[in-house]
Amino acid sequence: MSKIPYKIYLNESEMPTAWYNLRADMKTKPAPLLNPGTLEPMPASDLAPVFCDELIQQELDNDTRFFEIPPEIRDFYKMYRPSPLVRAYCLEEKLGTPAKIYYKFEGNNTSGSHKLNSAIAQAYYAKKQGLKGVTTETGAGQWGTALSMACSYFGLDCKVFMVKVSYEQKPFRREVMRTYGASVTPSPSMETKIGQKILHDHPGTTGSLGCAISEAVEVATSTPGYRYVLGSVLNQVLLHQSVIGLETKAALDKYGIKPDIVIGCAGGGSNLGGLIAPFMGEKLRGEADYRIVAVEPASCPSFTRGKFAYDFCDTGMVCPLAKMYTLGSNFIPAPNHAGGLRYHGMSPVLSQLYHDGYMEAISVKQTDVFAAAEQFARVEGILPAPESAHAIKAAIDEAMKCKETGEEKTIVFGLTGTGYFDMVAYEKFHDGKMDDYIPTDAELEASFATLPKVE
Amino acid sequence: MSKIPYKIYLNESEMPTAWYNLRADMKTKPAPLLNPGTLEPMPASDLAPVFCDELIQQELDNDTRFFEIPPEIRDFYKMYRPSPLVRAYCLEEKLGTPAKIYYKFEGNNTSGSHKLNSAIAQAYYAKKQGLKGVTTETGAGQWGTALSMACSYFGLDCKVFMVKVSYEQKPFRREVMRTYGASVTPSPSMETKIGQKILHDHPGTTGSLGCAISEAVEVATSTPGYRYVLGSVLNQVLLHQSVIGLETKAALDKYGIKPDIVIGCAGGGSNLGGLIAPFMGEKLRGEADYRIVAVEPASCPSFTRGKFAYDFCDTGMVCPLAKMYTLGSNFIPAPNHAGGLRYHGMSPVLSQLYHDGYMEAISVKQTDVFAAAEQFARVEGILPAPESAHAIKAAIDEAMKCKETGEEKTIVFGLTGTGYFDMVAYEKFHDGKMDDYIPTDAELEASFATLPKVE
Repeated sequence: MSKIPYKIYLNESEMPTAWYNLRADMKTKPAPLLNPGTLEPMPASDLAPVFCDELIQQELDNDTRFFEIPPEIRDFYKMYRPSPLVRAYCLEEKLGTPAKIYYKFEGNNTSGSHKLNSAIAQAYYAKKQGLKGVTTETGAGQWGTALSMACSYFGLDCKVFMVKVSYEQKPFRREVMRTYGASVTPSPSMETKIGQKILHDHPGTTGSLGCAISEAVEVATSTPGYRYVLGSVLNQVLLHQSVIGLETKAALDKYGIKPDIVIGCAGGGSNLGGLIAPFMGEKLRGEADYRIVAVEPASCPSFTRGKFAYDFCDTGMVCPLAKMYTLGSNFIPAPNHAGGLRYHGMSPVLSQLYHDGYMEAISVKQTDVFAAAEQFARVEGILPAPESAHAIKAAIDEAMKCKETGEEKTIVFGLTGTGYFDMVAYEKFHDGKMDDYIPTDAELEASFATLPKVE
Repeated sequence: MSKIPYKIYLNESEMPTAWYNLRADMKTKPAPLLNPGTLEPMPASDLAPVFCDELIQQELDNDTRFFEIPPEIRDFYKMYRPSPLVRAYCLEEKLGTPAKIYYKFEGNNTSGSHKLNSAIAQAYYAKKQGLKGVTTETGAGQWGTALSMACSYFGLDCKVFMVKVSYEQKPFRREVMRTYGASVTPSPSMETKIGQKILHDHPGTTGSLGCAISEAVEVATSTPGYRYVLGSVLNQVLLHQSVIGLETKAALDKYGIKPDIVIGCAGGGSNLGGLIAPFMGEKLRGEADYRIVAVEPASCPSFTRGKFAYDFCDTGMVCPLAKMYTLGSNFIPAPNHAGGLRYHGMSPVLSQLYHDGYMEAISVKQTDVFAAAEQFARVEGILPAPESAHAIKAAIDEAMKCKETGEEKTIVFGLTGTGYFDMVAYEKFHDGKMDDYIPTDAELEASFATLPKVE
């Protein structure tokens, strides 16, 4: 067999033409979203004031296995996809491991992450519906940047509510969004009723993701021609992100490679759900077996220490309830610069699969994550996002186990993005000022006590 | 013929195995470097205390057409190369032009630019010579980042003198370099005699590139096992950067495409010289004709308003003299955020070619450059570095001429890097606070008066 190249690129003709809906192969489907008022499953009509119509269909459809990717989206994908599947030859050599390590690198676009895969899809359906614009929230800024790029491409207005502390600490992220024509408002703001109330009750607050979601939803539902869009957790997002896994599998198949372990970092689940989709599909259908590993921060351990229960998706408790692994919607993670992995809950699809034993989950400490990030950067060149580095840490650990046992396992992990906008966290790490906060059992119990009573 | 894909990638087997030395095909060779003390041409022995031995050979060799790329460097190249040659379908559609626009995108690596192509080569030869480390200066930070990555890969120590104002204004750049293990010192510093002198004479100075060069050279020549390396201007750098043009030409040849115009931004000439190398080679050998266009900032117009004369390469006047288009080594460009294009001189190779009529040069205003950058970002997705955006501006202008005339010209330009660390400049542009300073004739005449008298 010919030597595996450093980077496996698909040709345009080999790129996926349909997204894969993992739910179609699940024996136990993810539990339905519940109306926060009635606690009844939400039909499409309940969701229509908030979300775009076609996205609601994708959200609720547990049966259709493939959704065709519209040509307009495929054209956009061609500007930054296929992303490379990289053979980590240099890392393998550095570790001295017999393991074969691959990573799917999603950072080669201006948003710096995989978020663009779903942003362009959501913007497309909003445009197709004849909407004027969309609203969203952003914390670390990757999702807001991705959505700004997507809206700019389709000529949609884009209103981003950015958590105030990030707005102030990450002015560069804000300027990138402005470059793409988005309006960026620090949250809480005086532009919404909920923002005004929060500012009145908590003067001087630096905001939270939950508050920003509430503001974005309020503007979407009260402004004609606008809808709200979200970058993770939702079923539709996992559907769009399946392009990551489909490309990964196609690239591996091209060289006859079958992975033993597939590893992804897990915050709300957008990357993990996309990366593992086709592998999990084969596993669900009994066609193949893989170890599938979710990696989460020890500071926000939804899978490994959370409860599988119905909970609110936002801290403001205005959004639908989802059944998922959750730390409680009141859970506030410790200051943790892996911004994308701070969500209290987890995708309902992934939660169900984990509950049913189809995947594993581990948690890792932040300083170990940054040490792995730096080790990776120095041999593989790419400066990883802190989120992505959780998967790096787990992959290195698995590779070192192979070194002990002599096993030549094939490890595939998702490198979701780049860390250019996370240098404050790297600086703390270099200066020895980063800590490893882990919530106590008592803290988690207190948070679980606020879970809504739903059967 | 099959449709040209959005991105043309070469296979690893199609990647260049040798760098192309444009000087071998020049009828009039670039003038030799002169010893600043004797004003005599510098033999290798004069350069040995400053530069690595094998790089000196490359610097002085005007005859060898191809230099084999060592396998260790080719392996590193494979981690981030080949870079894509992108067909700008979306930009073409937006402009409504019949022109066909391609760009070679060098920003898909952590240094964010093409600088890594030469950094890895220079680090390799330093390592091969058994050196302990290298020193360099950096302004905007792209070169320093690239060199840090390269040194980290080969286990070399890397000392970067960073212009103090950049060190303070771009802490993220500094942290990226630290992540790769480099030491970063704000210049002027107390670590060198020249730094001490400057701080004594000009307390409170925020530094300059010229001062940082002087400090880096002093440390390299006074520390056993160290040499100095430079990211532009030098012949050796253009040699390494020829990989850009060789890949571009191979990708075009694969689809039978012959460009009419090749456009590159020009600061010291590292990108431009690399991009145009094989095209210029054909032109010099009379095998083909191309319009070759250098684009420089109106605020620092070496080609379009400079003199072709011997001048110092640094403001400290300790480095060799080069014959080049120059604004005078005392020329201080206006505050201009296109950091990489602020150099007072120009590659001697490119200067000779321009002098001999083989290429054109134009200058463009900064606000026009940022307007083009934003227009490009919104349709092509990539957020360009301000340097790169000079080429974008010129390419768009050429494409709009084609729209008027109906000509279906093929335009190729170099997109050297990304603008993630330049958001302060973008912010000024968005806020209408960016100006278009252009030096007056009187200012240039005053600067020319300081040119050394050499015949």
